Amino acid sequence: MAIESYVVVHNIAKRHNVGTLARSATAFGVTELILVGRRDFNSFGSHGSTSHVRFRHFHSLLEARQFLKEKDCDICGVEITEGALPVNQHPFKKSTAFLMGNEGTGLSARECEICDFFVYIPQYGCGTASLNVTVAASIVLHNFGVWAGFSERSRDGNKFVVAERPEKQVRYSAETEEAIVEERKCKRENAANGGFFEVEDGGKGDSSSAAAANLLDTLFIDD
Amino acid sequence: MAIESYVVVHNIAKRHNVGTLARSATAFGVTELILVGRRDFNSFGSHGSTSHVRFRHFHSLLEARQFLKEKDCDICGVEITEGALPVNQHPFKKSTAFLMGNEGTGLSARECEICDFFVYIPQYGCGTASLNVTVAASIVLHNFGVWAGFSERSRDGNKFVVAERPEKQVRYSAETEEAIVEERKCKRENAANGGFFEVEDGGKGDSSSAAAANLLDTLFIDD
Repeated sequence: MAIESYVVVHNIAKRHNVGTLARSATAFGVTELILVGRRDFNSFGSHGSTSHVRFRHFHSLLEARQFLKEKDCDICGVEITEGALPVNQHPFKKSTAFLMGNEGTGLSARECEICDFFVYIPQYGCGTASLNVTVAASIVLHNFGVWAGFSERSRDGNKFVVAERPEKQVRYSAETEEAIVEERKCKRENAANGGFFEVEDGGKGDSSSAAAANLLDTLFIDD
Repeated sequence: MAIESYVVVHNIAKRHNVGTLARSATAFGVTELILVGRRDFNSFGSHGSTSHVRFRHFHSLLEARQFLKEKDCDICGVEITEGALPVNQHPFKKSTAFLMGNEGTGLSARECEICDFFVYIPQYGCGTASLNVTVAASIVLHNFGVWAGFSERSRDGNKFVVAERPEKQVRYSAETEEAIVEERKCKRENAANGGFFEVEDGGKGDSSSAAAANLLDTLFIDD
């Protein structure tokens, strides 16, 4: 069976992080991004990647664990615990789901309970206790991809090729029909995977956050 | 001579990125963060890391190259070029400065000219042409640290130990005297290294950006 990777985030506090996480998840060939608990998020920072990522939602950690165990996945906590191994040693055996700590506090005791093993990212400097959650996830997924020997995405010049994504203004042109079908399928599946609710850049009915996102767009969008 | 790493960013377009870049730079033991061209930046996202990072500024790429060559550094462009090697193969020889592409466009011809060699980060999925600049820098610095065999930072429980940083409200207490001296030294050196101008969370005289940063703080600070 092909090796797969999953990312699991429990009650992510900063909605902005899901967008940049989605961008890295698709870059590193993640099968699904699994959100447990909170299910609203903001795709700000995703650079459109959220339309290429499959999302799934569970209300509890135990439901997520059951789903992953049915897929014969190891669950790997990304946290500095007793016995955690440096991620660059590639201590992987099979398909693996990576459980990321909520920003700031790291993995809770309940989160650690569903993990089969732990990896951590070695740090060398004195100025920060931990890494940004997307940075940490990206380093772990990079190492997992190298271990699994995933096929590299084809390139066009100095960029990896991005699959077509339908633009709203050309929604009904013949060229993008296949892409529309694919996007609708992805949306249907995302809806089926827990009725996932995506807030695009602040979302409707939340004007202060939308205004902030728009204001921010013009200032310093995370890239 | 001890192996060192540097990060070089030329005309970074999104000021917000320097803060998160600083957090990763200190995590991975970077000696100096070198900004070429634009010198205003925003420490939003740095989690205080900017006070632990040494900054340097040059007006031109050639000045930066000269400085790095006097330190006997290789200059490594992070870009998918003909002949670029996967970063996980660790194609390093000695102290190295990593030149990151400006967000979006990648390295320009002029930027490529000052590089001795290139590395790239393999991608496997179809949803994004490139990674966030901080994510890319972090993956490269992680690989370099593993190659160089940098000493791991000591830990306290599940966190790496952060060096003391004086808080404004306890600025004159005896415990933090040493930290104040250290911070002042760092500020003096940063000033000497090109009169670097740091904009804290939006900065003065730029009320719209300050308002956006403050509004953002309460919504979804990047973590």
